[in-house]
Amino acid sequence: MLCLQTSFTMKKQFIHQTALVETESIGEGTSIWAFAHVMKHARIGSNCNVGDHCFIESGAEIGNNVTIKNGCMIWEGITVEDGVFIGPNVLFTNDRYPRSPRLPEAEKRYSTKNWLLPTRIKRGVSIGAGAVLMPGITIGKYATVAAGAVVVKDVPAFGLVVGNPARQRGWVCKCGQVLTFKNKIGECQNCKSTFKMENNLTVQLIG
Amino acid sequence: MLCLQTSFTMKKQFIHQTALVETESIGEGTSIWAFAHVMKHARIGSNCNVGDHCFIESGAEIGNNVTIKNGCMIWEGITVEDGVFIGPNVLFTNDRYPRSPRLPEAEKRYSTKNWLLPTRIKRGVSIGAGAVLMPGITIGKYATVAAGAVVVKDVPAFGLVVGNPARQRGWVCKCGQVLTFKNKIGECQNCKSTFKMENNLTVQLIG
Amino acid sequence: MLCLQTSFTMKKQFIHQTALVETESIGEGTSIWAFAHVMKHARIGSNCNVGDHCFIESGAEIGNNVTIKNGCMIWEGITVEDGVFIGPNVLFTNDRYPRSPRLPEAEKRYSTKNWLLPTRIKRGVSIGAGAVLMPGITIGKYATVAAGAVVVKDVPAFGLVVGNPARQRGWVCKCGQVLTFKNKIGECQNCKSTFKMENNLTVQLIG
Repeated sequence: MLCLQTSFTMKKQFIHQTALVETESIGEGTSIWAFAHVMKHARIGSNCNVGDHCFIESGAEIGNNVTIKNGCMIWEGITVEDGVFIGPNVLFTNDRYPRSPRLPEAEKRYSTKNWLLPTRIKRGVSIGAGAVLMPGITIGKYATVAAGAVVVKDVPAFGLVVGNPARQRGWVCKCGQVLTFKNKIGECQNCKSTFKMENNLTVQLIG
Repeated sequence: MLCLQTSFTMKKQFIHQTALVETESIGEGTSIWAFAHVMKHARIGSNCNVGDHCFIESGAEIGNNVTIKNGCMIWEGITVEDGVFIGPNVLFTNDRYPRSPRLPEAEKRYSTKNWLLPTRIKRGVSIGAGAVLMPGITIGKYATVAAGAVVVKDVPAFGLVVGNPARQRGWVCKCGQVLTFKNKIGECQNCKSTFKMENNLTVQLIG
Repeated sequence: MLCLQTSFTMKKQFIHQTALVETESIGEGTSIWAFAHVMKHARIGSNCNVGDHCFIESGAEIGNNVTIKNGCMIWEGITVEDGVFIGPNVLFTNDRYPRSPRLPEAEKRYSTKNWLLPTRIKRGVSIGAGAVLMPGITIGKYATVAAGAVVVKDVPAFGLVVGNPARQRGWVCKCGQVLTFKNKIGECQNCKSTFKMENNLTVQLIG
């Protein structure tokens, strides 16, 4: 049964009555909302929220405490680590040169899965509404992808990327606020975490 | 009951049999199509059309004569005035620095609703397919947002904005046609309305 | 009945139990997945795949061997030829100056269908995730539209277009791989097809 509840510590799952859930790998406390479809062998951790009209494909891997807003599709080859925010209609991809596998000129390529390029979204990342991610990339921990960005290469930890194609415009704290640096040291105005800029390409949390 | 019909002036509502409608605030003559989900306490006026796979959240406010094409999500904090056109998969947002509220590093921010930034779409506006609107902005009356635009700031009344980030490229009539100006006066080739350019930043309907 | 099977050559259709299929014009071997909606008088050829949450409008024309990923909407006026790949949430449009037809200032325009501009997607084309196509254009055979592109004009056969607005960045083979040219001759590293560049604007398959 998909709806679990014990008298001890286990938190109840919520599966909306219109959702289709074909996997058994959904953690405790996770909610799956209306008209969503989670395929067999997809894995979703505990305490997640999967919005209306989402599609989670067999082979997708989703950690704990992940928020997936409405209309997202998480394909085979996509790994989403703990605490990630995926905005509405965010689009992942796993094929760099897609063709219809039913087109005779392309069907040979789809006789194996060599076309599949994996994507990894690391802990605490936020991906804004309608962003598109090209396949084969890694979004570093706590990075933020702005709404509407089209990401064509890796994003460093704590990086903020914007635009089409997405370019780095700054850095964000693990709590999500934009950081300002002075003499290579940044302090978050919100949660008071401090960061050191190693060079212009990487930032490290120091306190 | 959701389907109303009287023998007098009241126009029938249409709620598709697969739609989920949890609010009682839907005006007469409004249609809600397949697999759409309208939450409790959302408000939708009369004579609107809400396409397949839309999601209207509690707290969203939608006026009369509004056309919402398929796959749109209207969140809490979004106000849509009368006569607006919202193209397919248009994306609104209401949080400038989103994180998963389930991420311990961010959960404090979500203990109140201070993170929520409202958006207002004024009378007669059109928003093209797949446009993305950053939170906290106002789209002025009869403005047009082009398909695929990413809007990061307010748009003036009758303004036409295009691109990522969206920039103003011209002006449109209340009927939707693009205006050309000569000596600061513009006449719509379609509906013959006339406009005066006040400066390069605002336009006024004069006849 | 929608599910056909004969003991001879006819391939079975698959219609997911949650899909709404109102047309009778669906070819053999075609699959329609969960929460998809195909309207009356839409036409879909044989051996196609229509993903979850798609919407195919009355008047849309779809050929054979077409792959339509999740969340796509194919409107009246859109013609999709054989062997096309349409990525997730690709957005077509058919109205250049949309307004809500329910807005009194615009309703005259919607009293006829003169506003409708057709779009044609030719054989073997690929359209990447989340791309947006302005109305009234033709995508030439085997062209590729990159993920996240906003296409505002015709794309030549074998062309590769990228960005917002989409600009041509190169050429692709009928199998989907990017081509490199030397002395106006290109050979596909993957399928060994050869191409001749006629001028900088067109490319022809020569072997």
